[in-house]
Amino acid sequence: MNWLEQSIMYTRGVARGQVGTTHELTEARQHTFHYTMGPYSDPVLNIAPGDRVVVETRDAFDGKIRTEKDLPSQHLKVPFLNPQNGPIMIDGAEKGDVVAVYIESMLPRGDNPRGTCCLIPRFGALTGTEYTATLNEPLPEITRKIDLDEDGVYWSKRIKLPYKPHIGTLSLSPEIDSINSLTPDNHGGNMDVPDMGPGSITYLPVRSPGGRLFIGDAHACQGDGEVCGTAVEYSSTTTIHVELIKNWQIAWPRLETDELLMTIGSARPLEDATRIAYHELVRWLELEYGFDRWDAYMMLSQCGKVRLGNFVDPKYSVGAAINKKYLAPAVA
Amino acid sequence: MNWLEQSIMYTRGVARGQVGTTHELTEARQHTFHYTMGPYSDPVLNIAPGDRVVVETRDAFDGKIRTEKDLPSQHLKVPFLNPQNGPIMIDGAEKGDVVAVYIESMLPRGDNPRGTCCLIPRFGALTGTEYTATLNEPLPEITRKIDLDEDGVYWSKRIKLPYKPHIGTLSLSPEIDSINSLTPDNHGGNMDVPDMGPGSITYLPVRSPGGRLFIGDAHACQGDGEVCGTAVEYSSTTTIHVELIKNWQIAWPRLETDELLMTIGSARPLEDATRIAYHELVRWLELEYGFDRWDAYMMLSQCGKVRLGNFVDPKYSVGAAINKKYLAPAVA
Amino acid sequence: MNWLEQSIMYTRGVARGQVGTTHELTEARQHTFHYTMGPYSDPVLNIAPGDRVVVETRDAFDGKIRTEKDLPSQHLKVPFLNPQNGPIMIDGAEKGDVVAVYIESMLPRGDNPRGTCCLIPRFGALTGTEYTATLNEPLPEITRKIDLDEDGVYWSKRIKLPYKPHIGTLSLSPEIDSINSLTPDNHGGNMDVPDMGPGSITYLPVRSPGGRLFIGDAHACQGDGEVCGTAVEYSSTTTIHVELIKNWQIAWPRLETDELLMTIGSARPLEDATRIAYHELVRWLELEYGFDRWDAYMMLSQCGKVRLGNFVDPKYSVGAAINKKYLAPAVA
Amino acid sequence: MNWLEQSIMYTRGVARGQVGTTHELTEARQHTFHYTMGPYSDPVLNIAPGDRVVVETRDAFDGKIRTEKDLPSQHLKVPFLNPQNGPIMIDGAEKGDVVAVYIESMLPRGDNPRGTCCLIPRFGALTGTEYTATLNEPLPEITRKIDLDEDGVYWSKRIKLPYKPHIGTLSLSPEIDSINSLTPDNHGGNMDVPDMGPGSITYLPVRSPGGRLFIGDAHACQGDGEVCGTAVEYSSTTTIHVELIKNWQIAWPRLETDELLMTIGSARPLEDATRIAYHELVRWLELEYGFDRWDAYMMLSQCGKVRLGNFVDPKYSVGAAINKKYLAPAVA
Repeated sequence: MNWLEQSIMYTRGVARGQVGTTHELTEARQHTFHYTMGPYSDPVLNIAPGDRVVVETRDAFDGKIRTEKDLPSQHLKVPFLNPQNGPIMIDGAEKGDVVAVYIESMLPRGDNPRGTCCLIPRFGALTGTEYTATLNEPLPEITRKIDLDEDGVYWSKRIKLPYKPHIGTLSLSPEIDSINSLTPDNHGGNMDVPDMGPGSITYLPVRSPGGRLFIGDAHACQGDGEVCGTAVEYSSTTTIHVELIKNWQIAWPRLETDELLMTIGSARPLEDATRIAYHELVRWLELEYGFDRWDAYMMLSQCGKVRLGNFVDPKYSVGAAINKKYLAPAVA
Repeated sequence: MNWLEQSIMYTRGVARGQVGTTHELTEARQHTFHYTMGPYSDPVLNIAPGDRVVVETRDAFDGKIRTEKDLPSQHLKVPFLNPQNGPIMIDGAEKGDVVAVYIESMLPRGDNPRGTCCLIPRFGALTGTEYTATLNEPLPEITRKIDLDEDGVYWSKRIKLPYKPHIGTLSLSPEIDSINSLTPDNHGGNMDVPDMGPGSITYLPVRSPGGRLFIGDAHACQGDGEVCGTAVEYSSTTTIHVELIKNWQIAWPRLETDELLMTIGSARPLEDATRIAYHELVRWLELEYGFDRWDAYMMLSQCGKVRLGNFVDPKYSVGAAINKKYLAPAVA
Repeated sequence: MNWLEQSIMYTRGVARGQVGTTHELTEARQHTFHYTMGPYSDPVLNIAPGDRVVVETRDAFDGKIRTEKDLPSQHLKVPFLNPQNGPIMIDGAEKGDVVAVYIESMLPRGDNPRGTCCLIPRFGALTGTEYTATLNEPLPEITRKIDLDEDGVYWSKRIKLPYKPHIGTLSLSPEIDSINSLTPDNHGGNMDVPDMGPGSITYLPVRSPGGRLFIGDAHACQGDGEVCGTAVEYSSTTTIHVELIKNWQIAWPRLETDELLMTIGSARPLEDATRIAYHELVRWLELEYGFDRWDAYMMLSQCGKVRLGNFVDPKYSVGAAINKKYLAPAVA
Repeated sequence: MNWLEQSIMYTRGVARGQVGTTHELTEARQHTFHYTMGPYSDPVLNIAPGDRVVVETRDAFDGKIRTEKDLPSQHLKVPFLNPQNGPIMIDGAEKGDVVAVYIESMLPRGDNPRGTCCLIPRFGALTGTEYTATLNEPLPEITRKIDLDEDGVYWSKRIKLPYKPHIGTLSLSPEIDSINSLTPDNHGGNMDVPDMGPGSITYLPVRSPGGRLFIGDAHACQGDGEVCGTAVEYSSTTTIHVELIKNWQIAWPRLETDELLMTIGSARPLEDATRIAYHELVRWLELEYGFDRWDAYMMLSQCGKVRLGNFVDPKYSVGAAINKKYLAPAVA
């Protein structure tokens, strides 16, 4: 049996895993991409729980970096970075619910798909930045264009990396804030967690009517931490299956795969992001999996898994996870 | 001669320090208070550079904590905290300009003015919070109502504190974000810097047409850091004199008093807020006061002053300052 | 061919991977365990490069927590925690060299081996601590004794965890500091990196004559971050093969396995530990594997792996790694 | 009446403020300066509680930077920085006691006293460092020699700064660690708190027999944060009056002046240093000044003062203070 049938999404979702209508959210239909996630933008699509959406995402540079001679400082204009599709309204979604997003597939778009990786001045983990404000000269500005297909990411003659796509930015709307698409927080946002690829389900808390789903920032591959500040950014056709879970109060995004349950925290300093993730995981085990709080805490100290999303965005993202095999109920 | 006449506000402002029309921004006129600062709300007032505004601010609890029996968890509803007056549109303000706000006076409102200080669960510096997520039980929830007048803040029979009012939250709008009124950032916001009282000028970068000035969160007094999470929060009549300085590119808020020039950074961790503040101050001395960059940096290492605003908000705020006497031009 | 034969340890070590004398460092021979790592303690053993040492380590509680009724606050006395075997002097080791420690095996000691996991007041990631000083009441104090053998760690009736042993604390001496055994830093120390188990080689920088190797703190298993503050702490028989690499200047510990090369940073905040680890890895690729610096930086942004050691010690530890398959020289 | 007579030092000290023998700790007598503070070095002096010591301190560069052409990288050798006088043994000091150090005076030494301020590569607050490890090129290396006397510090033709001397590094020994003289912690160390000048009393916890007092690192003046990494470092004649307070359990250094009581925390990130300082101050008010814990916490939120020591050392230092006038007992 497919693990999805036993997933939280399928067992608790309104549509019980049934796939409804398939919508096409093409670039043309999207028309105006968004650079903040909030309650103030016009919906681009209304869907029912269980519907599938085929989304044409743009790369994080809005396609403006076309050759290795195009430098970020010439073509990018802060804060108009990381364009998002959406908002997609989910019928019946209300504050206190959860929207589940299962990623079915992510394919490169275009005849000659290429990804883009840039070294952007004063951005990245190993440089002074706007926040870690130093007086050092910035690092050099560099653009790399990388051929890729479903078989691999051709980094250099020497090195072929696996094609391991994931969605960098996935959000519902905050209740009253409108947050730029570079910043992750408890609404989701620019988390850059490599696990958020095909085969994963992300659970996001609903805070405004319809949920208002935003999606973008496809990565063909990405290392833990996204250390230089960018992944192999590319334009994708991403197919998602969206569900609604009523009356599930969660404070931060969560993720499920065949193998694990993960909670995701985003904050600075990095220990606070990690604290949030593990705190949410302890509480989840306590509230929904029959663990004593302190037993959950002590057990995760022995088997918890941590994934560093990014530590380059305005807030850093960390996932804390447990293998689902440890959650099976005790044999009577 | 009054120092104001030589201030940046008076010497570089459009109105050259002339006071224009006085506007009354009463509670009734404000009608709808705001909980985010951004470009999406309707203006409440249009003013010209040089105009004066008399603002009736509400306390950070929106007046809902009336007695010491009123607990925050009963009466407050996140994120509807820290109500802001505004947005006030300043004629001619455009991206790349600066709006200057001189605080003329801050008076308690009402016949029997009282301030409010609360210990709010999972909020404050010496407790686990939403971000520094711990499994400890929260601290007790406590409300204090404190009599105050222009002569003092009557903390207890034992202790009378000086009445040293300041504005906790002062902002222009970000370019595209709409940021909740608890969070400071480079647009200003909930900085809680005690120097921002009567006699101070705050300089804020314009990022959207008209600037969109928000103001609120009066404190009758506050210690460095606002350690328990709240000051003596009160409703005030605050009179401000607003100016516009064209073509002054600043990245973060700045403040001027008779004695000092200050730059204000807001970030986590706290060292990043301090780095931002000092970085901005070094650059200011270099660009506008004739210092060599490295001389400014090394000299501030000998005479810089640091003020901790808050270290309890979603971002912490720090001011770095230099006494203006060190900025006098060298004798020829 | 065994990967070890191509390891840095074997190809650059003085003994070229030859195994010399086997020494027994029993509890009796150790006699006095150490709670700081520094240049001021008396050597317990002198070995030649290539020698093997069979070490009887004590658990981090010095064996004082014998039953689930023994509470840490009753039996432990700060700073006398985490007893270390050593110092072992390596012939010929001088400042500027590296000592390599290959862990051959780790076996539980005793007839009825049991591990210990404690919740210690004001220690751990999800609680206020001595540093993250809060006024909350501490978490409950709890002791768990856990049966274990080479087949598994029997956490509860419900859950059996894999036996995945590793050494929590491994160090050479700093040049002049003597650092308590709870704190990791650039000398090694209490890093709690789960990869540091049988089959791994750790490279440590020599800073004082003979290197002065300390070892202890065996864990039968541990999750990323060691979130509650302790692993399944147990007394082990750990067999190590020790080598000396002359004239290899490294600033922080490194680790090699069949699959990966890792650099380890220890600092607070956690982003600094991560920065150190990735900075060292970029520089390593540049200096020893023929990468351009910026190419290494940008490539690690696509394929770097991060392991969180602990984020509960006085400094947090992070490993950044690359799969060795990407380091193969380009085909001519 | 001199405030000293009512100070904690005088009212609780063994010698009750009486000044005993005056000892001369000249450079010659010191002979070997120390670069770690710990229990492993040989005492240089034994004194009784109440004794006065006249200490000839060396500057933090050990006098090796003689002209503006002498660059730190040429003349300094890590970790042999910041030489300390001591250890001075105080008769009767035992673990659980406190040693009080009143600074009577600090005078420049030599006929033509000059201070030294250096910009050291990869050291300071506005640059990448060993911990905040960036790939940026380091800042330029610069040495400044500054004439000074008791009337002022002659920074440039344009700027004369006040002579405001203080001791940068003051410590007792940790119990078992030996900590380099660049690092502050709960034993004291390189705190760089500008309040620690003539007229102040520092209270340090005794952790080993005799206390083992170390002192050094005189600054002719210093701004909050010591932002470039160094102050106006100079060689001084510093006269201290040393007392012993029996059975006073304190966890971190404290400081008293005519006006205030201060607690000092040292940690990273900077918010943790601030948390420690305020936590200790709340507890102090509760345990020794008759405050309810929560009242103390909430009141400090209104009147607490924060001093940033350094935020450039391996740990950052922060003082939290209260004006002593608020500690007067309530009138009956």
